[in-house]
Amino acid sequence: MGPDPAVAAVRVAVRRALAGLPADGMVIAACSGGADSLALAAALAFEAPRARPVRPAGGVTIDHGLQEGSAVRADKVVRVLAGLGLDPAGSVAVVVGERGGPENAAREARYAALDETALRLRATAVFLGHTRDDQAETVLLGLARGSGARSLAGMPPSFVRRPSGSEDAGVRYVRPLLDLDRATTRRACRAMGLEPWDDPHNEDPAFARVRVRHEALPALEKALGPGITEALARTGRMLRDDADALDEMAARAYADAAVQGEGGEGGEGGEGGGDGPAAGVVFEVERLAALPRALRTRVLRAAAIRAGSPPGTLAAVHVDEVDRLVTAWRGQRHVDLPGGVRAHRRYGRLLFGPAWAERADSGT
Amino acid sequence: MGPDPAVAAVRVAVRRALAGLPADGMVIAACSGGADSLALAAALAFEAPRARPVRPAGGVTIDHGLQEGSAVRADKVVRVLAGLGLDPAGSVAVVVGERGGPENAAREARYAALDETALRLRATAVFLGHTRDDQAETVLLGLARGSGARSLAGMPPSFVRRPSGSEDAGVRYVRPLLDLDRATTRRACRAMGLEPWDDPHNEDPAFARVRVRHEALPALEKALGPGITEALARTGRMLRDDADALDEMAARAYADAAVQGEGGEGGEGGEGGGDGPAAGVVFEVERLAALPRALRTRVLRAAAIRAGSPPGTLAAVHVDEVDRLVTAWRGQRHVDLPGGVRAHRRYGRLLFGPAWAERADSGT
Repeated sequence: MGPDPAVAAVRVAVRRALAGLPADGMVIAACSGGADSLALAAALAFEAPRARPVRPAGGVTIDHGLQEGSAVRADKVVRVLAGLGLDPAGSVAVVVGERGGPENAAREARYAALDETALRLRATAVFLGHTRDDQAETVLLGLARGSGARSLAGMPPSFVRRPSGSEDAGVRYVRPLLDLDRATTRRACRAMGLEPWDDPHNEDPAFARVRVRHEALPALEKALGPGITEALARTGRMLRDDADALDEMAARAYADAAVQGEGGEGGEGGEGGGDGPAAGVVFEVERLAALPRALRTRVLRAAAIRAGSPPGTLAAVHVDEVDRLVTAWRGQRHVDLPGGVRAHRRYGRLLFGPAWAERADSGT
Repeated sequence: MGPDPAVAAVRVAVRRALAGLPADGMVIAACSGGADSLALAAALAFEAPRARPVRPAGGVTIDHGLQEGSAVRADKVVRVLAGLGLDPAGSVAVVVGERGGPENAAREARYAALDETALRLRATAVFLGHTRDDQAETVLLGLARGSGARSLAGMPPSFVRRPSGSEDAGVRYVRPLLDLDRATTRRACRAMGLEPWDDPHNEDPAFARVRVRHEALPALEKALGPGITEALARTGRMLRDDADALDEMAARAYADAAVQGEGGEGGEGGEGGGDGPAAGVVFEVERLAALPRALRTRVLRAAAIRAGSPPGTLAAVHVDEVDRLVTAWRGQRHVDLPGGVRAHRRYGRLLFGPAWAERADSGT
């Protein structure tokens, strides 16, 4: 008799993820003790010694120190991980700050600790237990931001984190369970006799994610049918492809249209030519106008950010207004953007720079 | 004292929409008698005679014949439209079929009648009363389909319908109120002393849209905050730009990569060359592989449809499987698609054709 179908499903997913990695090096399961990451850790413990070549596999749990008894909790998880055969199995205690809100701060602290652990153990990858349900929640949370394809793209199946200032190649994170639902991981734990820990934070309606899970998604399912979780996850994946393609094309379009300040958001810096404001970006209007709107708005947004507008406050309405300088120009002088940045059109060029830089020649 | 702010907002929106049209020709407001289209009709009646040059403006209501007393209802709406000063003001009775479900069939009958009315009156445009709330609902309904950017793109602010087989330029439809919320149109009606008619269909939970309006959106708002309607509408607009750009690029990529069966979905037909199955499409694998995934999946989908796969049943999973013939080929022979279409890779080419066409040379 083969394993329970849920157990088999989790193992197949982990096996596929292992097959996609470089042939050697340790893989670490990050495990909160919840059903998702517990099923993941168990499947990794099962699959790693059966891989050819045999793959070392460890497990780590992060003690966020946010709840009474969290250290005891973490010790219990470590014993379970060790019992599964993961070696090393350990916990890392972190101090959660306050920056960006409680969810953000906890996530940052957690990833920093996982980065460190992976680098210390020279691990090839860290496996994360996010499921399709987590993905659907993430897509819905992104919908509330209303900032286009990228914010709806959900979590990527794998990504690399490079600790800033580090010379390392970075740490690869993989989410093998992104196509499985949460119920499967619960069933798998039950079938393996593993008792998952239900984090009380996962029931606290103070968190937007919890409200999405317990209120928004059930209401959507009731209104739109039971396929909504899958549809959201699929949407996220397709929009990630779209965003990747458009972002790359926009970076090329930026370079093509810029006569100063090439390089786009986060780029290497402009030519430092003398025909525009310092730290500014200058485009040929004609080349911008020839772009499809999806690319042009991305280029304009990147230019505004490069000129100093903070990404968090630069909204779609601002970008739209700058877009009208290109496509619906009826002599508007300029558009003021967050962060004291001004976009203005002059002599067939669109300039982004500090608002003060323009005053000297405001007679034009 | 100026008009009520809600009345002013609707009028400004209508004035802008009028300014975007060719200078002459009648504009018709399509009016169900509901608050949205009633406010629209009133604003058109106010703005049209004040436009320079003065613009003829009419109003029409469609009697779907689906409810007891719908003819009497339609007559009432016509009297209101005439009372507002719209000329002509009339109603058109339609027979609603059953194709594609009740909502679809009613929409089809309604647009066919509006097309006819607009062509008969040589109207420049038909104005529709959809608001930002309708847009948010449409985006959420599209989310349930989970088929990518296009299905999330919502309703365009304007579009042209060309009755099939017609030699006409078609009928332009415009949605001036897409940036206003439903509450504004209600307030505007109240301020103008107009009594909107509440269609009982708008309260019938048998309709997915009604469930989205009364259950899903309030739950989302509760979970994610009050900006969700606006965020959904904004998302729709941004994803429409993305989908427009990517679809156009995909059409070019299709033509570039195809060695037979160029033209893409709905195109003019291939060259009829002899090196592949009849009615088939043949691509150079290398050129497909060089495309970003967002374009390649669109090209593959278009090719499958062109080869005879029905768009309604061709799903993302099918396209993904074909994609693996290009990007993760390990000797798979072929992929079977809905509608008896088969995709197969051979000698560096990807072929789409009827499944039977391949049998003759299945030894390859």
